[in-house]
Amino acid sequence: MADKRENGRSPMGIENSEDDEFGSTSMRTVETLLRLLPMSLCIAALIVMIKNSQTNDFGSLSYSDLGAFRYLVHANGICAGYSLLTAIVAVVPRPSSMPRAWTFFILDQVLTYIILGAGATSTEVIYLAYKGDAAVTWSQACGSFGGFCHKATASITLTFVVTLCYACLSLISSYRLFSKYDPPLSYTPKQTETAAASQG
Amino acid sequence: MADKRENGRSPMGIENSEDDEFGSTSMRTVETLLRLLPMSLCIAALIVMIKNSQTNDFGSLSYSDLGAFRYLVHANGICAGYSLLTAIVAVVPRPSSMPRAWTFFILDQVLTYIILGAGATSTEVIYLAYKGDAAVTWSQACGSFGGFCHKATASITLTFVVTLCYACLSLISSYRLFSKYDPPLSYTPKQTETAAASQG
Repeated sequence: MADKRENGRSPMGIENSEDDEFGSTSMRTVETLLRLLPMSLCIAALIVMIKNSQTNDFGSLSYSDLGAFRYLVHANGICAGYSLLTAIVAVVPRPSSMPRAWTFFILDQVLTYIILGAGATSTEVIYLAYKGDAAVTWSQACGSFGGFCHKATASITLTFVVTLCYACLSLISSYRLFSKYDPPLSYTPKQTETAAASQG
Repeated sequence: MADKRENGRSPMGIENSEDDEFGSTSMRTVETLLRLLPMSLCIAALIVMIKNSQTNDFGSLSYSDLGAFRYLVHANGICAGYSLLTAIVAVVPRPSSMPRAWTFFILDQVLTYIILGAGATSTEVIYLAYKGDAAVTWSQACGSFGGFCHKATASITLTFVVTLCYACLSLISSYRLFSKYDPPLSYTPKQTETAAASQG
């Protein structure tokens, strides 16, 4: 029975052949860039949001007045720190161990959910700020605080780009983890093959 | 070099040995249950939210007055339908093909993000309804519409349980997909072994 490694393939479309080291190196480069990109985007989103306050005749409005925007700032801060840390870990070539693969997998998933949650809650707030809600007597705020709303929208957009990057990173860390495991055998031609091999 | 299948393991802790068929069957059972559970939870969350309206001296409030709750209802509806459909597909034993594994993986991920987004936006709305926001002159609404807020909270809680189920389902479908691929080779003792084997 042929070994999986010899005629195998990677989901990134790089055939596993003798220049495997290249495939692995290029994948590590992609992963490192995919971790540095959200780091810079998180910092940008964080700065835009932190500097976001507006004072006019109607009063003053700052990001810290809204719980969702405070959460966005914290989530972006955590995400920037995590991205930097993991980019450093990812750039150094070293044996990929099982605990390391599990740690990356779980943390990448959690970060994806955290940053998606931050983007979603902030989108809801900015939606309410633009549209208001007559039934609950929440007035729209962006007529008076247009500048504030524009900057908040920019920060939220950056956060969604970070979410996309993290969805890709989750894919990569899933691949790194689960490609170490055997596929479940069930009613496939391969199973019959394995059974025959173990008997023969 | 030993084949991965012979001394392999599955992430669910079931050793791949001769009773592999059992391991695979039990995993399929777990997957089917994990798809039927969110289906019933989604329907429950959907019914609780759809029936959620309150009329009193202050006026009347219905779930359809708030965009986030409408999104929650739609997301739960889509999720219930998808869960039922995939539970039926998952329960039937058949060869697991690559396109099928990719479809399950991508759709499970997308559904996880959709349902998490619905939960997050609704949480923000219910938070604002309970607390209000003085800076944006949004008054709290749950003082007048306590019953409405309680039912909405129940529906949102169910939605987060669905999110947890879907996080587990994403894990299972990632395993099913990526365990079919070879691990990336990089600076591991295994790589040297492979190189030696291909030269020898």
